Amino acid sequence: MPGLIIVCYPALRGSIPALYSIQECPIRLCRNLTNCRACDRISSMKIVVAPDSFKGSVSALQAACAIEQGLRRVFPTAVIEKIPMADGGEGTVQSLVDATGGHLRTQRVLAPLENEVDAQFGILADGETAVIEMASASGLPLVPVDKRNPLRTTTYGTGQLIHAALEAGCRRLIIGIGGSATNDGGAGMAEALGAKLLNANGKQIPRGGGGLAELASIDITGLHPAIAETDTVVACDVNNTLTGPDGASHVYGPQKGATPEMIETLDAHLADFDAVLTRTLGQSFNDIPGAGAAGGLGAGLMAFLNAELRLGVDIMIDAVKLKEQMKDVSLVITGEGQLDFQTAFGKTPVGVAKVAKAHNIPVIAIAGGIAEGAGVVYEAGIDAMLGIVQEPMSLEDAVGDASRLIADTAEQAARLVAIGYSGLRRGN
Amino acid sequence: MPGLIIVCYPALRGSIPALYSIQECPIRLCRNLTNCRACDRISSMKIVVAPDSFKGSVSALQAACAIEQGLRRVFPTAVIEKIPMADGGEGTVQSLVDATGGHLRTQRVLAPLENEVDAQFGILADGETAVIEMASASGLPLVPVDKRNPLRTTTYGTGQLIHAALEAGCRRLIIGIGGSATNDGGAGMAEALGAKLLNANGKQIPRGGGGLAELASIDITGLHPAIAETDTVVACDVNNTLTGPDGASHVYGPQKGATPEMIETLDAHLADFDAVLTRTLGQSFNDIPGAGAAGGLGAGLMAFLNAELRLGVDIMIDAVKLKEQMKDVSLVITGEGQLDFQTAFGKTPVGVAKVAKAHNIPVIAIAGGIAEGAGVVYEAGIDAMLGIVQEPMSLEDAVGDASRLIADTAEQAARLVAIGYSGLRRGN
Repeated sequence: MPGLIIVCYPALRGSIPALYSIQECPIRLCRNLTNCRACDRISSMKIVVAPDSFKGSVSALQAACAIEQGLRRVFPTAVIEKIPMADGGEGTVQSLVDATGGHLRTQRVLAPLENEVDAQFGILADGETAVIEMASASGLPLVPVDKRNPLRTTTYGTGQLIHAALEAGCRRLIIGIGGSATNDGGAGMAEALGAKLLNANGKQIPRGGGGLAELASIDITGLHPAIAETDTVVACDVNNTLTGPDGASHVYGPQKGATPEMIETLDAHLADFDAVLTRTLGQSFNDIPGAGAAGGLGAGLMAFLNAELRLGVDIMIDAVKLKEQMKDVSLVITGEGQLDFQTAFGKTPVGVAKVAKAHNIPVIAIAGGIAEGAGVVYEAGIDAMLGIVQEPMSLEDAVGDASRLIADTAEQAARLVAIGYSGLRRGN
Repeated sequence: MPGLIIVCYPALRGSIPALYSIQECPIRLCRNLTNCRACDRISSMKIVVAPDSFKGSVSALQAACAIEQGLRRVFPTAVIEKIPMADGGEGTVQSLVDATGGHLRTQRVLAPLENEVDAQFGILADGETAVIEMASASGLPLVPVDKRNPLRTTTYGTGQLIHAALEAGCRRLIIGIGGSATNDGGAGMAEALGAKLLNANGKQIPRGGGGLAELASIDITGLHPAIAETDTVVACDVNNTLTGPDGASHVYGPQKGATPEMIETLDAHLADFDAVLTRTLGQSFNDIPGAGAAGGLGAGLMAFLNAELRLGVDIMIDAVKLKEQMKDVSLVITGEGQLDFQTAFGKTPVGVAKVAKAHNIPVIAIAGGIAEGAGVVYEAGIDAMLGIVQEPMSLEDAVGDASRLIADTAEQAARLVAIGYSGLRRGN
């Protein structure tokens, strides 16, 4: 039946009936003139392309498209499945929306210092699942450096995003909590969802980590009724407790603008907060790993939304059904902005690699930069890694030209894989 | 018989008798727990590593050693043949000495402006063959920028190197002529070898391109007698004529410090020089391709040493017997400082690739930088190319860390080839 034929040598063109469209195999896999069976096989293989975003340059979807473009130069007829990934950090909403064909919503909310800003969240194609990045409403970049003060900053805006998602009918929430400007234990978020945080006189306490000084009781009877029927998972890759030396205030306070004195104050307030939560809900959240994430928002989400904390990439893997895509896959390509020793701890490439390895599929990682010491990712299942920079250049130039560089790097990866597939078979 | 066993999974260690030494296969090629036959096969393959130097950072031998080091991390027991290459330019002497186990000689000579300098040449392991780079005695870097004047600069020092090689008993000369500071048609070189270049009064003419103004006759009876029994090949990758618009003076004069007026003078002098050569030797050299190389030294070497001009990389390929090394080779790795569209015109990686392609062997090029447009090398037989820069960095940092970067890049190339060899076989 007429169709596309891949030929390995121009000389073959003449022997192919005009009914067929002809494409020249760019690397001439079979390395002989009589047939192209090797090429046919490799050209029909299935490849999963599942990168994170390259932070500061391209989204995960853009990275996946660039990788596909490079692969196509070598494997023009391969089946390429693009799955934009994320790890719960910046870009998670965009990747999940892109991966599922969902859409973005804009919501006017209070920023950490209570000025109004437009924040975005995503609703996935199922219409049931909302994706929220707390940083969109309560992130550090929303506060000028000279005004960073976790005694004042509030998670109220994050609560408003959750409220909007519930009002939109979503009953499944995926919440990324990286990059917070706050240290209020999620008190502001709870208030926005209808909880009343009261002082000894029954008055609403001030917002921010400092306001918790007055907290005497919490009335949760006014919480949004949809919360009771909503599943909430929180992308969290830290294990900090709510208070103490490994707690939110001591570990993350300084980067949010807290002075040493403020840290002690904030830590004491969160301890008081947990005491009130314990009285109100019959449970302390202080020692649960992740309670101290995002200035204690981890604890607040567990307390008020009964949230489950999980590794962000694992949430993504479930949300995009990555495991279900691995059938008959010959190769997985992942990637992110930077590969380093941290990558081995729950970042996207390693999460993707674990899924691939369970199916015995080789994994290649493409990265904006590969730091010394990145070799630890081999143990985590990545078989090879390539940086996209082709010659000495500045970070700005690499960022500005990222799509081309990613595509060119994917092409070289494909060429090298093809060499192994074809060239080395001869002797065996 | 006891020996080295490569195991793919740590779990296999326990099942191997203590008689064997055990090494873990870094990429676990066979991807199963029951045998390592795929690994065994790929691990015993033969790889030829034949890079040029990475100009300004590592010699060809150092580059080859770094590539071997990276390959060994993946193919610990492969047979790796290191062959330092060159293209007739800078590094040719070092590469040929390294490739053959020859040695370097130092010779006091006259620099282009007749100050004395130490220059080096190589004598290969056969004791018969000398390798000379004209730039070592008569190169542009030997002349300060503000003193560059091809009316004055002479190739006398290059002649002294040739003289020293003949005196050392060498009867085969390989001469690289890139990077000259001169435009004297090789007159100085000829003088150093015993020719007499005389004016109308029978007096020795002044040295330099300007001195040729007085040339009336050449007496070659005093030429070094060994020249008659010496084979000379000149590495030359340009086709310029001696004079005219495509001649030495017009094309290369400016970069040697010639003003537009000087260029006309120099061109006229070389035409007179060729007229005297024609009277003396019965042959004009003006129109022979390459006569205009190195300020006319190409013509001078043809006239006085009966030299053959050839592409530098082809001379190297013969000198290191590259073709003879290709038997049973599964993979060839080459490389150089920069891959660009010029690489396709007779530079080392393409020369090496042509040899490999005649034996149907896949070729990977590793480069300090890969410029846009380098893709033309695919047509010349290079199957894949990787830049050594792993993250955005300056040229200085890349140069300073070249050996590590080259090794890491070779490792990734090997990992990707191994993925192709093993991973993709499963489905087929």
